[in-house]
Amino acid sequence: MSLWIRYTRATAKDDGRTGFGLLEDGRVIEYEGDMFASPRRTGRTFDLEEISLTSPCVPSRIVALWNNFHALSAKLGKALPAHPLFLIKPSTSLAGPGDTIRRPVGYDGKIVYEGELGIVIGKRCSNVSIEEAADYVFGYTCVNDVTAAELLFEDANFPQWCRAKGYDTFGCIGPAIATGLDWQNTHVVTTLDGVERQNYPLADMAFSPLEQVSRISRDMTLLPGDVIACGTSLGVGSMRDGATVEVSIEGIGTLTNHVSEVLATAEAR
Amino acid sequence: MSLWIRYTRATAKDDGRTGFGLLEDGRVIEYEGDMFASPRRTGRTFDLEEISLTSPCVPSRIVALWNNFHALSAKLGKALPAHPLFLIKPSTSLAGPGDTIRRPVGYDGKIVYEGELGIVIGKRCSNVSIEEAADYVFGYTCVNDVTAAELLFEDANFPQWCRAKGYDTFGCIGPAIATGLDWQNTHVVTTLDGVERQNYPLADMAFSPLEQVSRISRDMTLLPGDVIACGTSLGVGSMRDGATVEVSIEGIGTLTNHVSEVLATAEAR
Repeated sequence: MSLWIRYTRATAKDDGRTGFGLLEDGRVIEYEGDMFASPRRTGRTFDLEEISLTSPCVPSRIVALWNNFHALSAKLGKALPAHPLFLIKPSTSLAGPGDTIRRPVGYDGKIVYEGELGIVIGKRCSNVSIEEAADYVFGYTCVNDVTAAELLFEDANFPQWCRAKGYDTFGCIGPAIATGLDWQNTHVVTTLDGVERQNYPLADMAFSPLEQVSRISRDMTLLPGDVIACGTSLGVGSMRDGATVEVSIEGIGTLTNHVSEVLATAEAR
Repeated sequence: MSLWIRYTRATAKDDGRTGFGLLEDGRVIEYEGDMFASPRRTGRTFDLEEISLTSPCVPSRIVALWNNFHALSAKLGKALPAHPLFLIKPSTSLAGPGDTIRRPVGYDGKIVYEGELGIVIGKRCSNVSIEEAADYVFGYTCVNDVTAAELLFEDANFPQWCRAKGYDTFGCIGPAIATGLDWQNTHVVTTLDGVERQNYPLADMAFSPLEQVSRISRDMTLLPGDVIACGTSLGVGSMRDGATVEVSIEGIGTLTNHVSEVLATAEAR
């Protein structure tokens, strides 16, 4: 199992350029080229203190599942689906470790966290079987699938999944991509201001990661770096402005984000 | 008003490379650089016969509206919304003029056309007012917002807008981008195998193009080349395999696509 990260370095020479590499024993082993296709070691290594983590990949979209855990399905009183139910979070919703979750301009309602496992696609992927799907999974990351909850059912005729979940900074992923995660024996733990709010076993998932990749690859071609957010389970809740939210998965790490402290104004861009 | 197109040329020298330019008096005036940011004339011109049109831009996403015309709203018996209701079609749904609309593997239900006006974004755009929105609109194109209709409400708990409309080749746009379209005095005309099926005035739109850009720019940052599909009106219907569907808007042109002739098999990739 390896841990891939992306980062910037603020030294004059690197000038904020985004690099990537492996995290090993608290050191960063720099690579170059394409993370998903035979990246090469540069020979440079860094201390963690020298870098700032960014999102570990740059998805063209985040495919986010709804109702994919037995426990949440039972609580909602809604049967598990016959096919993964998903919405699309646009590329512009992306946020990385440490990034601020920004309250949408003009929205003063609840902003909700959803800690989730994220599948990172490694190769262009269309109509693959469950057996083939493993070849197309690069690894796993933590996701906070943030939602402007009060917009979801604002219109009685059309649930606004893409709008409520698509705002800039509402697709938090990171801190790293773990290859070869033993997800069956792992929990998703979400804390809000240090208090545990979610702690659910990934073994309770309805569609397994490989089933999701296979099924969704029949709905659209998936691209390298795309993320499938596997859906959340019990314990979803809202975050006050200024809150700190952390999603942890053993083997991947902890994704930490903060909700913006003040209401953005109409003048803010 | 100008007409921008993208194309490939099959000559040995161009080797299938995608170029772009203006369409003037049946000639192609080639440009280079960025279509949305000070493109430069190369000095070359081509006959239309020398080129094959591709999609006129490459959206990072297509934002597709539902229930944005008074006539359709009345027919559906559903009130017009207070804010544009939208789903996201992923980049991989893109198809251009002449491209085949491919039946999804394993789906043998109805495939439906929706002729629409498409707004093409020219500049990165976030939280803009209606007054500012015009600066961010590059132009307009025709859209066929194709839908696997029987999947939409297959699950009683979650309408599958992104899935039903997100299949590869279900986001047809083209043939050109018209700058400065007088949309208020223009109709969308859709024909199926030569028979007119839709002919509705764009003046019947609920949220105007500039209102859409302003409102949706408050929901997500829009990127150059992104397309907002303005929603359809009366006359939506299904297409048999092998059908020819055309969406025409005066001032833009005619977007022609064909539905794949035979059922794709599970072996097809």
